[in-house]
Amino acid sequence: MVNKEETWYSHWRHAFKLDPDKQLTEEALEQICMSGTDAIIVGGSSGVTFENIVDLLSRIRRFEVDCALEVSTLEAAVPGFDGYFVPLVLNTADATWINGKHTAGLIEYGRFVPWHITAAQGYIVLHEQSTVAKLTQAETQLSKEQVVAHVQMADRLMRLPIIYIEYSGTFGEMEIVSTVQKTVTEAQLFYGGGIDSVDKAKKAAQFADTVVVGNVVYTDLPAALATVEAVLAKSY
Amino acid sequence: MVNKEETWYSHWRHAFKLDPDKQLTEEALEQICMSGTDAIIVGGSSGVTFENIVDLLSRIRRFEVDCALEVSTLEAAVPGFDGYFVPLVLNTADATWINGKHTAGLIEYGRFVPWHITAAQGYIVLHEQSTVAKLTQAETQLSKEQVVAHVQMADRLMRLPIIYIEYSGTFGEMEIVSTVQKTVTEAQLFYGGGIDSVDKAKKAAQFADTVVVGNVVYTDLPAALATVEAVLAKSY
Repeated sequence: MVNKEETWYSHWRHAFKLDPDKQLTEEALEQICMSGTDAIIVGGSSGVTFENIVDLLSRIRRFEVDCALEVSTLEAAVPGFDGYFVPLVLNTADATWINGKHTAGLIEYGRFVPWHITAAQGYIVLHEQSTVAKLTQAETQLSKEQVVAHVQMADRLMRLPIIYIEYSGTFGEMEIVSTVQKTVTEAQLFYGGGIDSVDKAKKAAQFADTVVVGNVVYTDLPAALATVEAVLAKSY
Repeated sequence: MVNKEETWYSHWRHAFKLDPDKQLTEEALEQICMSGTDAIIVGGSSGVTFENIVDLLSRIRRFEVDCALEVSTLEAAVPGFDGYFVPLVLNTADATWINGKHTAGLIEYGRFVPWHITAAQGYIVLHEQSTVAKLTQAETQLSKEQVVAHVQMADRLMRLPIIYIEYSGTFGEMEIVSTVQKTVTEAQLFYGGGIDSVDKAKKAAQFADTVVVGNVVYTDLPAALATVEAVLAKSY
């Protein structure tokens, strides 16, 4: 990572994404928080409420790990996180998901936003069957050239601090992620989707600045925990 | 202007916007270019072609003034300008005008873009009857709170380098421009629309970093020329 900006999340190589709408035992949560991961990101595409976020945050707060909220709806922007991500979907024709919901939310909550720990994420959503793709009507069938254009738009023109390649529910095409890595100049590159093994974690870590591990936490915790070392062991 | 980034356009206080689809005599063009203005911006919402831009650029190039192209269509991105602006419309529900046309154009022309002299402008289009408002289906009837939300989204989250308050065809509400000035943190604030007198130029210069004077060039050249000193005489 060369010449990139220092931010509250710029040192993150590995993060777990936890869904406030899903259940985790205390023991599982402790293992996740004590795993050596750089951060926990709280967020989900459905069933997210102020109450279930407060609940999950208070449980994570017993540990020292960084904890950020991905704000999918400003109504559920719970105070007390170390930082806040505001996702924008880049590959949709529906401006609702680019800046529509965001400006609507800012009218009500804009004066409460802790801007110095708030960052926009430019999502490129690439798995057609994912909840987020359906919700946002993302145009997931993109050529490499189309992905590059979205990255140039977001990284060079909009100057979004983060580009997030999202294959939620499936492991993505690493050739696409590699192309994005070569294209991006200033933004931090997040990758998420389908990481359920050391092997996949290592592959994604080759190209992404930050590897996000989600669903496998709920289906195979030991496999999820093993991704931490796989990513952090990457040599730079 | 405090703590703002230094760019190829950050020192501009006054600019003339010339429409390549409109006619100017050599004498008029000379007076504009020699007026003391900081820059000429070439751009228009209709009738813009590669040929009429090349023609206007070559005529402006006889003078030393900075000259930038507002790239409304990447097909008409003529090389040889001092810089390029890429306009995004913020207050529209149609993503075509936020990033749609831009990414489509980048697929074909992305590799030719001189990124170091290219900057995105986040337009807030506020005159319902303007060509640009109709073309982009801009939601022009915005409350002050809605404008503030758009500015926060563009300035704080997207981190667009320029916010452009556009009242093309009419002189805007200075209370809105004043509110934007108070809200914006990093972006350079451009104002355009209805400046046809020293008085209006001074008013806009109170709030905007950069005042853009357009149509009056074609209807009352002496009045247009008088705006230069009105803006540059502003004490900081």
